[in-house]
Amino acid sequence: MIAVLKPGVSEEQISNLTNWFEEKGVSVHKTVGMYQTILGLVGDTTKIDISLLEALEMIESVKRISDPFKMANRKFHPEDSVIDVSGVKVGGGNFAIMAGPCSIESEEQIIEVAKQVKAAGANMLRGGAFKPRTSPYDFQGMGGDGLKLLLEAKKETGLPIVTEIMNANHLPLFEEVDLIQVGARNMQNFELLKELGKTNKPILLKRGLANTMKEWLMSAEYIMAGGNENIILCERGIRTFETYTRNTLDLSAVPMLHELTHLPVIVDPSHATGVARMVEPMSYSAVAAGADGLMIEVHNNPEKALCDGAQSLTPKQFAHITDNVFKVHEMMRGIK
Amino acid sequence: MIAVLKPGVSEEQISNLTNWFEEKGVSVHKTVGMYQTILGLVGDTTKIDISLLEALEMIESVKRISDPFKMANRKFHPEDSVIDVSGVKVGGGNFAIMAGPCSIESEEQIIEVAKQVKAAGANMLRGGAFKPRTSPYDFQGMGGDGLKLLLEAKKETGLPIVTEIMNANHLPLFEEVDLIQVGARNMQNFELLKELGKTNKPILLKRGLANTMKEWLMSAEYIMAGGNENIILCERGIRTFETYTRNTLDLSAVPMLHELTHLPVIVDPSHATGVARMVEPMSYSAVAAGADGLMIEVHNNPEKALCDGAQSLTPKQFAHITDNVFKVHEMMRGIK
Amino acid sequence: MIAVLKPGVSEEQISNLTNWFEEKGVSVHKTVGMYQTILGLVGDTTKIDISLLEALEMIESVKRISDPFKMANRKFHPEDSVIDVSGVKVGGGNFAIMAGPCSIESEEQIIEVAKQVKAAGANMLRGGAFKPRTSPYDFQGMGGDGLKLLLEAKKETGLPIVTEIMNANHLPLFEEVDLIQVGARNMQNFELLKELGKTNKPILLKRGLANTMKEWLMSAEYIMAGGNENIILCERGIRTFETYTRNTLDLSAVPMLHELTHLPVIVDPSHATGVARMVEPMSYSAVAAGADGLMIEVHNNPEKALCDGAQSLTPKQFAHITDNVFKVHEMMRGIK
Amino acid sequence: MIAVLKPGVSEEQISNLTNWFEEKGVSVHKTVGMYQTILGLVGDTTKIDISLLEALEMIESVKRISDPFKMANRKFHPEDSVIDVSGVKVGGGNFAIMAGPCSIESEEQIIEVAKQVKAAGANMLRGGAFKPRTSPYDFQGMGGDGLKLLLEAKKETGLPIVTEIMNANHLPLFEEVDLIQVGARNMQNFELLKELGKTNKPILLKRGLANTMKEWLMSAEYIMAGGNENIILCERGIRTFETYTRNTLDLSAVPMLHELTHLPVIVDPSHATGVARMVEPMSYSAVAAGADGLMIEVHNNPEKALCDGAQSLTPKQFAHITDNVFKVHEMMRGIK
Repeated sequence: MIAVLKPGVSEEQISNLTNWFEEKGVSVHKTVGMYQTILGLVGDTTKIDISLLEALEMIESVKRISDPFKMANRKFHPEDSVIDVSGVKVGGGNFAIMAGPCSIESEEQIIEVAKQVKAAGANMLRGGAFKPRTSPYDFQGMGGDGLKLLLEAKKETGLPIVTEIMNANHLPLFEEVDLIQVGARNMQNFELLKELGKTNKPILLKRGLANTMKEWLMSAEYIMAGGNENIILCERGIRTFETYTRNTLDLSAVPMLHELTHLPVIVDPSHATGVARMVEPMSYSAVAAGADGLMIEVHNNPEKALCDGAQSLTPKQFAHITDNVFKVHEMMRGIK
Repeated sequence: MIAVLKPGVSEEQISNLTNWFEEKGVSVHKTVGMYQTILGLVGDTTKIDISLLEALEMIESVKRISDPFKMANRKFHPEDSVIDVSGVKVGGGNFAIMAGPCSIESEEQIIEVAKQVKAAGANMLRGGAFKPRTSPYDFQGMGGDGLKLLLEAKKETGLPIVTEIMNANHLPLFEEVDLIQVGARNMQNFELLKELGKTNKPILLKRGLANTMKEWLMSAEYIMAGGNENIILCERGIRTFETYTRNTLDLSAVPMLHELTHLPVIVDPSHATGVARMVEPMSYSAVAAGADGLMIEVHNNPEKALCDGAQSLTPKQFAHITDNVFKVHEMMRGIK
Repeated sequence: MIAVLKPGVSEEQISNLTNWFEEKGVSVHKTVGMYQTILGLVGDTTKIDISLLEALEMIESVKRISDPFKMANRKFHPEDSVIDVSGVKVGGGNFAIMAGPCSIESEEQIIEVAKQVKAAGANMLRGGAFKPRTSPYDFQGMGGDGLKLLLEAKKETGLPIVTEIMNANHLPLFEEVDLIQVGARNMQNFELLKELGKTNKPILLKRGLANTMKEWLMSAEYIMAGGNENIILCERGIRTFETYTRNTLDLSAVPMLHELTHLPVIVDPSHATGVARMVEPMSYSAVAAGADGLMIEVHNNPEKALCDGAQSLTPKQFAHITDNVFKVHEMMRGIK
Repeated sequence: MIAVLKPGVSEEQISNLTNWFEEKGVSVHKTVGMYQTILGLVGDTTKIDISLLEALEMIESVKRISDPFKMANRKFHPEDSVIDVSGVKVGGGNFAIMAGPCSIESEEQIIEVAKQVKAAGANMLRGGAFKPRTSPYDFQGMGGDGLKLLLEAKKETGLPIVTEIMNANHLPLFEEVDLIQVGARNMQNFELLKELGKTNKPILLKRGLANTMKEWLMSAEYIMAGGNENIILCERGIRTFETYTRNTLDLSAVPMLHELTHLPVIVDPSHATGVARMVEPMSYSAVAAGADGLMIEVHNNPEKALCDGAQSLTPKQFAHITDNVFKVHEMMRGIK
């Protein structure tokens, strides 16, 4: 960690500050510049709260050199983590395809889609029961009833299921859910993260709408610090000024995260682009970037249902994509 | 509401869609362009879920003409709302100054600051007990114990108190809190908003880090739709590419919100800029823009405490600012 | 085009406005809503200046339905444009690999790199002579002398060359340059675009740092409107809040642009990420997204030279990437 | 300047690098951390090109501690610069109000507006002759003919004039222009900046649409490095996700720039918000933030003209605002 002091700080102030650091077990190396003095802090600086430090009148800026995440950090855990989702492995070369409708609407719908995506190659079923909506007047999902239908579809097909949680109080309803999703708007709902850290459930942690990778990994760290290391990261697009796509899919996050962390990284091209026609090319692109899986919206009858977003594919379109996704994945395996 | 159809949509499809709208009590006006057909939808369109509509293959884009918020909308509630926070009125010409430390640290600290900010002109006391922190390793606040100390300071000074809630399960602890703050990271924690909508407590709703005013008002709408109309909005800076300030304070949001909604709007220059030296000019600037109040971080001894952010003022600096804030507020009243 | 009127506009005002539109050859369809009236404008609305229209007190908002670009629009030019760069074809299935150093430093350097990238499979040579630098104190490139060395390397290897122009007055120096690059910071230097529109040189138009695809296509339209239709678009990353990568590479722009325009689209993973280690995965990812080519920074001796950015590869690394890029390109051809 | 080395760099490599720095007259202080070594560089580091340095395989990151701008830096020039625009002083307590139409349309229009804004208290006349437009099909301004009309209005009223330049080749036409504006889209048109650095004309440098203050000051530095120190900065809003306003006016930039630089800073609330109704409150707000002047769009007959943006005021509205602006400015003078 580097602390840059303001011009004109007295020797006594520097000495007091140095003592304070040393009491915390951190050693200090001083560099005196023409205008400014810089303190290099060596040791376990994760205990030092940057914002506390920045409060001091004598300090101009503070910069952490090493990453603030530890448990998620690949430096301290070089091998890929493989997350086991009720028998389906994700990460370390294991590829996951999660597919299903945005919202669960009826037993017939979810079971039909489940069968079709399984036939097309999906190894996990997704479906929304609790839906985060910008407007209180929009459909908020079927809730607990939706979860029951999803469990029916799981029984019918054997596919592990993934669905979003919005409230830690709902955890008892998620007992039989195989992979619990934390949505973009809850990525920094630290209270929810802490509760999930107390479970041993695999967690799918989506990136926040305008969050950096560092913030995202710190949110993973919240869950891990609680004792739950079963985390899969999901890139789902970030907010930019572009309007032709709903968000901007950040595929360079895939190899960058693979460097920064041992956790698996999957990609959701449906929400990222918000355009069904873009799901196919972005699926191939994500796999070529090294993604450990995909999450794709599939609906059995987009026309009739008047439901789901513009990003839904038909099962037939989805089957075409999975076929090719496996080919691209196979080729990428050969390249590396 | 406007729905733009894709080129080549058949008359039959248009007719089916028109019927569907009419069943929902919305009448349809068709404009046939050279390349595209446009449907103008007239009536109560708040019940129509835009993302449902966008899912249809025949639809290119949908645009809501009228604002999607109703209870927060000034069109349907022309007079300013005045929120009564245990006797301190906010909005409609009533000006609020909330001040206090970022974090509650000790009984001595919070009571001393409370007395000093009261003497300097503050009419509400702020202090953080539950702290949202990006890192699980950073100080998370004193929690329930901190709340008790804040209540002590309230007793001692008579100042109503404002403090942040992060978890609806903590609501019983907030019984005697006068104004409950929802922080930027929880602005779209819809489950929390719904629970707050069931109370009758005044809520201070901060703007999310990368959220638009429309999204912010929709979050206010969540609380109001639940039955609680006691909401104060707080602009606290948005994320931009600028790095000299922590966030970018959006002061044009103040007059724009006054046009869009009847709810009062206050400004937090401390968190917005992250720089104590900027709090003074931005306080005057906020008042000149028409803000209904300010929320300012004040610490009794920023140097010694090694706490709070770089944005804290001393009580003496704060007193200087409030003096002038009242003058600017008085002058602005004369101008309008 | 849709014009939404403010509430309370009189019939006479609407009638005047309607006449004004009809004089411009645009017919008007009126939809009267509960609160507002909407005018649907049909005909050639490209002549109507949106900002002129928005100036009217009676108008709330204006929305163009059809895209404002015409010559670049795929709707009016369904087949892929193939740009011929001195014999190397780009677009319509033809794949281009442009490689070379960020800055030209010496005859020896540029000729050595040129030979090496040619051997590795590049079919165009890039090299910066005029360099846009944020600071006036940074190296501004070798200028005209650099161009001469680049032409030497062209003679030596037969590779067409691509290099950046910053000033239309330099055009005489670019006579023998095969592909003229417009950099991100000049994407909306409209005076430069107009001058390039008067030439018949192929232009490589990079996306601006915080620009949308629509703005980018309007900049292409500036060149095309002047008579020069030889344009290749180059996605090079946009500014976001992410800091682990220099910019965020927007690969969903590739298939989206292929839908919007007939112009070829290439990708520059070196500048987009600013990290040499990310160039390999993002090259494969770009090809899988359907890119028509790549632009990659290669330096003959990154260690020794103390030059170029952190994004430079060695020729050996580059050769490894091109080998695989061709494989991925071949596979993608099979998939479609 | 701080250089953070990668883990595992050899002593020999560090020694070579240290020698290289010392040859450049920069001394090196080494701090050896647990995982990484940090080099503190002391001396005149403005000559060291950060991107050159970052290219080295052994280097993880480089951070400049001192600001990269020198001539614009208040540290080396503590007193406010006062820019003399043909007798009208800007900065150092002198307040400027520049007003006029977005585009010059006719002799009658510009002269009438000029008289009206002068009567209302403006001390400079603005008017666009060369207009940067996103679309090649939009009105590009009257060009040289417009400049002549503006000069007529100057003669008639005695007001110094300010107008935008887009092409250094047009400089001869700007001989009698008193203050030359560089627009947001040309803020990083370095070739234009260099040419303006060779003149002795006062320059109004607008902030780029998505640029930081540091980049903005570096662009001022380009002009100053060429020998022209007559620069006024103009904050005109930056691009954010907000849509109710066209851009987001960054008023905290005003006091922050006053700390960073000695150059005067004015504010353009018309372009920043794009909404005429917001110009009044944001003008007062800008003055309260410490702005050295305002640039406001005024049109003699917004309704009839079908011209200008939604941000234009009538002369009468403008007169009301200037009256109050002077009052707020007077009060702020008393406060400091």
